[in-house]
Amino acid sequence: MVTRRQFIGRSTAAVLGAGLVSRAGAATLPEAATSDRATLVAPGLPPNGRPYHPVVTLNGWSAPWRMRDGWKEFHLVAEPVTREISKGMVAHLWGYNGQSPGPTIECVEGDKVRIFVTNRLPEHTTIHWHGILLPNGMDGVGGLTQPQIPVGKTFVYEFEMKKSGTFMYHPHADEMVQMAMGMMGFIVVHPRNPAFMRVDRDFVFLINAYDIDPGSYTPRINTMTDFNLWTWNSRAFPGIDSLVVRTGDRVRIRFGNLTMTNHPIHMHGYDFEVTCTDGGWVPKSARWPEVTVDVAVGQMRAFEFDAAHPGDWAMHCHKSHHTMNAMGHAVPTMIGVDHRGIAQKINRLIPEYMVMGDKGMADMGEMEMPLPENTLPMMTGTGPFGPLEMGGMFTVVKVRDGLGRGDYADPGWYAHPEGTQAYELRL
Amino acid sequence: MVTRRQFIGRSTAAVLGAGLVSRAGAATLPEAATSDRATLVAPGLPPNGRPYHPVVTLNGWSAPWRMRDGWKEFHLVAEPVTREISKGMVAHLWGYNGQSPGPTIECVEGDKVRIFVTNRLPEHTTIHWHGILLPNGMDGVGGLTQPQIPVGKTFVYEFEMKKSGTFMYHPHADEMVQMAMGMMGFIVVHPRNPAFMRVDRDFVFLINAYDIDPGSYTPRINTMTDFNLWTWNSRAFPGIDSLVVRTGDRVRIRFGNLTMTNHPIHMHGYDFEVTCTDGGWVPKSARWPEVTVDVAVGQMRAFEFDAAHPGDWAMHCHKSHHTMNAMGHAVPTMIGVDHRGIAQKINRLIPEYMVMGDKGMADMGEMEMPLPENTLPMMTGTGPFGPLEMGGMFTVVKVRDGLGRGDYADPGWYAHPEGTQAYELRL
Amino acid sequence: MVTRRQFIGRSTAAVLGAGLVSRAGAATLPEAATSDRATLVAPGLPPNGRPYHPVVTLNGWSAPWRMRDGWKEFHLVAEPVTREISKGMVAHLWGYNGQSPGPTIECVEGDKVRIFVTNRLPEHTTIHWHGILLPNGMDGVGGLTQPQIPVGKTFVYEFEMKKSGTFMYHPHADEMVQMAMGMMGFIVVHPRNPAFMRVDRDFVFLINAYDIDPGSYTPRINTMTDFNLWTWNSRAFPGIDSLVVRTGDRVRIRFGNLTMTNHPIHMHGYDFEVTCTDGGWVPKSARWPEVTVDVAVGQMRAFEFDAAHPGDWAMHCHKSHHTMNAMGHAVPTMIGVDHRGIAQKINRLIPEYMVMGDKGMADMGEMEMPLPENTLPMMTGTGPFGPLEMGGMFTVVKVRDGLGRGDYADPGWYAHPEGTQAYELRL
Repeated sequence: MVTRRQFIGRSTAAVLGAGLVSRAGAATLPEAATSDRATLVAPGLPPNGRPYHPVVTLNGWSAPWRMRDGWKEFHLVAEPVTREISKGMVAHLWGYNGQSPGPTIECVEGDKVRIFVTNRLPEHTTIHWHGILLPNGMDGVGGLTQPQIPVGKTFVYEFEMKKSGTFMYHPHADEMVQMAMGMMGFIVVHPRNPAFMRVDRDFVFLINAYDIDPGSYTPRINTMTDFNLWTWNSRAFPGIDSLVVRTGDRVRIRFGNLTMTNHPIHMHGYDFEVTCTDGGWVPKSARWPEVTVDVAVGQMRAFEFDAAHPGDWAMHCHKSHHTMNAMGHAVPTMIGVDHRGIAQKINRLIPEYMVMGDKGMADMGEMEMPLPENTLPMMTGTGPFGPLEMGGMFTVVKVRDGLGRGDYADPGWYAHPEGTQAYELRL
Repeated sequence: MVTRRQFIGRSTAAVLGAGLVSRAGAATLPEAATSDRATLVAPGLPPNGRPYHPVVTLNGWSAPWRMRDGWKEFHLVAEPVTREISKGMVAHLWGYNGQSPGPTIECVEGDKVRIFVTNRLPEHTTIHWHGILLPNGMDGVGGLTQPQIPVGKTFVYEFEMKKSGTFMYHPHADEMVQMAMGMMGFIVVHPRNPAFMRVDRDFVFLINAYDIDPGSYTPRINTMTDFNLWTWNSRAFPGIDSLVVRTGDRVRIRFGNLTMTNHPIHMHGYDFEVTCTDGGWVPKSARWPEVTVDVAVGQMRAFEFDAAHPGDWAMHCHKSHHTMNAMGHAVPTMIGVDHRGIAQKINRLIPEYMVMGDKGMADMGEMEMPLPENTLPMMTGTGPFGPLEMGGMFTVVKVRDGLGRGDYADPGWYAHPEGTQAYELRL
Repeated sequence: MVTRRQFIGRSTAAVLGAGLVSRAGAATLPEAATSDRATLVAPGLPPNGRPYHPVVTLNGWSAPWRMRDGWKEFHLVAEPVTREISKGMVAHLWGYNGQSPGPTIECVEGDKVRIFVTNRLPEHTTIHWHGILLPNGMDGVGGLTQPQIPVGKTFVYEFEMKKSGTFMYHPHADEMVQMAMGMMGFIVVHPRNPAFMRVDRDFVFLINAYDIDPGSYTPRINTMTDFNLWTWNSRAFPGIDSLVVRTGDRVRIRFGNLTMTNHPIHMHGYDFEVTCTDGGWVPKSARWPEVTVDVAVGQMRAFEFDAAHPGDWAMHCHKSHHTMNAMGHAVPTMIGVDHRGIAQKINRLIPEYMVMGDKGMADMGEMEMPLPENTLPMMTGTGPFGPLEMGGMFTVVKVRDGLGRGDYADPGWYAHPEGTQAYELRL
């Protein structure tokens, strides 16, 4: 499911703007691996460089690199992509290396990284490395710290990963538009000492939101508050991977927010502490016990817990509209209104018309309502006890006994690729 | 003002779904006490079980229980209710045991509780026990951890209160709708050791929001951001009880947020620290000095202070629109516009038309404007120095000398039942 | 640029309401200095009273005072003002002493202050001293702790500054309207011990938001969420002063939020800790490492860092719409739509019509589009590498080598008065 393409060989190096690749000289660029699916790729142990315990990117993957003269080289390609939001809906977004979000960049404290960024968008772009301490010229703010990267050109970023932690990358050029189109990716810098803050399972995702009219494919980029798709890694429930862990595991869940509002991430069955932000590791003395972590826009949070309680534990944004898929927020209330007579009359005119909502909306979870093309049901998903009546930012942390530890070759260990089969393993 | 009804005796047990009451067997259900008024009921000392210092629920009450073979048994009835939002406005909501929010559940660390939930709504429901550590099957997520509770049926939840703290209950079935209709309630688990984190006064409320068109009674359940009633325990100023304490008291104020946005709760006259969240007690080393506590959706916070400064101290959400009652957010500005001539012309067509707002809105506090039926004034309330020009999420913490401590029999000690008489005690 | 006017001499004292100046007796009022420009005034060392290290108010200034019998006397005049939001746009606001925000009040822990507030608005007002511990009667809540200050009258507030910290002032009368019109100001109480929490540079600003229709001058005061001007000290980029510091300086940046939503303030190039809130100084044990500080409405935050990394570091609200100037949030997406044919047809009807946005909006940064009168471009500002494509809540922290320390006489040391020349100093 992951293919590779060789973007630029020796013969095409000449088309690059000279200034833009001056730091890398005339070297060939590393491969830019690409993915065309929203499928979790089981993390692999690092083939070279410093050792680390890899993270699991929900519905995503980590970028490969090549080592060259002591530098870890990555290649990101900014480009239009097609992302399946959940089964039955596809969005036309902008992203990196075939998907939105782009691949997770994993490296180790002390690594020197060189990241080639090729612009295949219809307009200029840059990348800002959010939270990373780096030289001013590498900060990626178009116009302020570097020229914009023109269409078709490649820019090279070089810096040292001075500290471990939880970071992200996104454009700082036509920023509102490019983030509204899905351009973002996760960065994890692992501690040089693998024993420091060691966990057994380490999950990452970015929180995003889109406003895509039912029946259409491209986000409305000017929307400020009235989004209708609330997503994690550009996926909506039931398309979001569940987080499968073994009873007794030490678990870390990391996320960052690039929407336009706070998201209070709530997990059932446990209390826990935030141990890391995009500013660094939180000292023990400063930690709060929480069951809901409010992450502001442009913030990242990691929380940790010991998976002592087996079961299927819901994890979701606690804003109730954010666990719904596209719906009309101005539809009037029908609760308490007996409109059977009215419905009959309307049915003569519009045969598809359905009476809904005079007793609440629980019927939505099961009913067959004709939807526009490329539109998710507002409430959907099925669990072992019936319809879940959810959408958007919702998934399940599955704490299981008796599974093998560390079987990296089996993606199914981590999650169910399509999300919709998420409950088959229930004990 | 609190009546009792015996929902289900031995003769009607047969109508219960067998699976749904399997845990409780054929036992009769405990009484489900009910209240039809938004009036503070003075807390009583526990008649049996472990001792504790009761909390005060603003404009509300705590649920009674019965002890049975070492289990503390409660009975919640989910049902349509009528709630007075403030004098002059009534809302048709869904709640528990006659009111929205439902009664506060108080118990003690280590208590084994059995909670019968009877569904008298027009659609299925469940209850999720937010923040409580419990077995997966008791978590209350419809479809995931249990079947939905059908209309007319009773489900039994059983678990141990493993830790003390500040929690809440709400449905996890057709969740957006049922919370938008007012279904929620507070849970306090008192420490087993009564000396631990002991306070003299302990107040609780839930933050909610509704969108009810002027002149109507039922919330628009699809609203995502543009709410027009910002309430505490489904009450708006001046209908919110004031918090009366004695000078020198140690005071705790606990609240949880089930709206769609953060609420920064600001109290005048003091600085204070958050001591408890729905995740547990905050260690001293981790506490911040604050005058405004921002509580995210699906979070709970308790702050504490020593009532050293006598007086009438405003406490409110600091978002200025949240201390207003229903208003049109799209009404154009009249400030600086002299529209007396225009008003004359309009008056010939619409005799009730009033010129307003060309010099600000302070006149609103006093003026007599014809309002639609069942509609609160936008700005209202009167203090010892005149109109307060407030609404919504606003009340007063009254720190008083010379009042008797602990007179639990007198509700007036805690607050003034109707809110509007809140200032008679001013020193 | 700062003029002075003598509002009230002995001859006019008779028009004051007797009760309103009873505390100050028949004394003359202190001068009310005024400013008619949005220009940073370099801070001066205190001419009398306890010594302190002054703060820098972005695009603003600190109020002078007079010492009288051991009291520090200030005079604030609430009045309509004209504020330049950025070059090319002026807003008609309400503020204090000629500008919005009003002047910063600086004093020292232990100071006894007497603040005369004269009301030159068209409606009544009060001032609440947010975060200050003071007697109940000085708390400034109209109707609750004092009578409203009528039009044309002066009220006197007297209290002791019991603790150092970061505070603000704003009305508590017709509060929603008066804050939406820009009435607010910063208060800094310096520690009595100048060595306590000493920094080299100390910047302050208030976060505000306005909804001003393109082509008009007065905010729409009823707007709850859909603001179109996101400002710091009522200024939008590129009109916001940059923060210029010397390499190695200890820097503090303080801000408070009086909008209707949280603002996550993100600074590039550094991680840092919040050291102060409006509740007090944050103990070291409780501090979190951050790169983005989320400040809720009615909260204040100060963060600090050692300016070890030279360069131009962006500082901005991380909500992407808050770094844009006025735009239509409901404009449909043109990305991916080839509308050249359509544009041709429209051009025949409307010659000014411009094709925009089918490839993103990066063109906006450079293009010449006819704008309504008194309207800022949506994306604007220029850096050393070209257009910055920003607006609203954005500025630059400039960390520079080789500049003189403490040259208080030179405003240019702190920032470039017009903002638009902000990049000339780039190394």
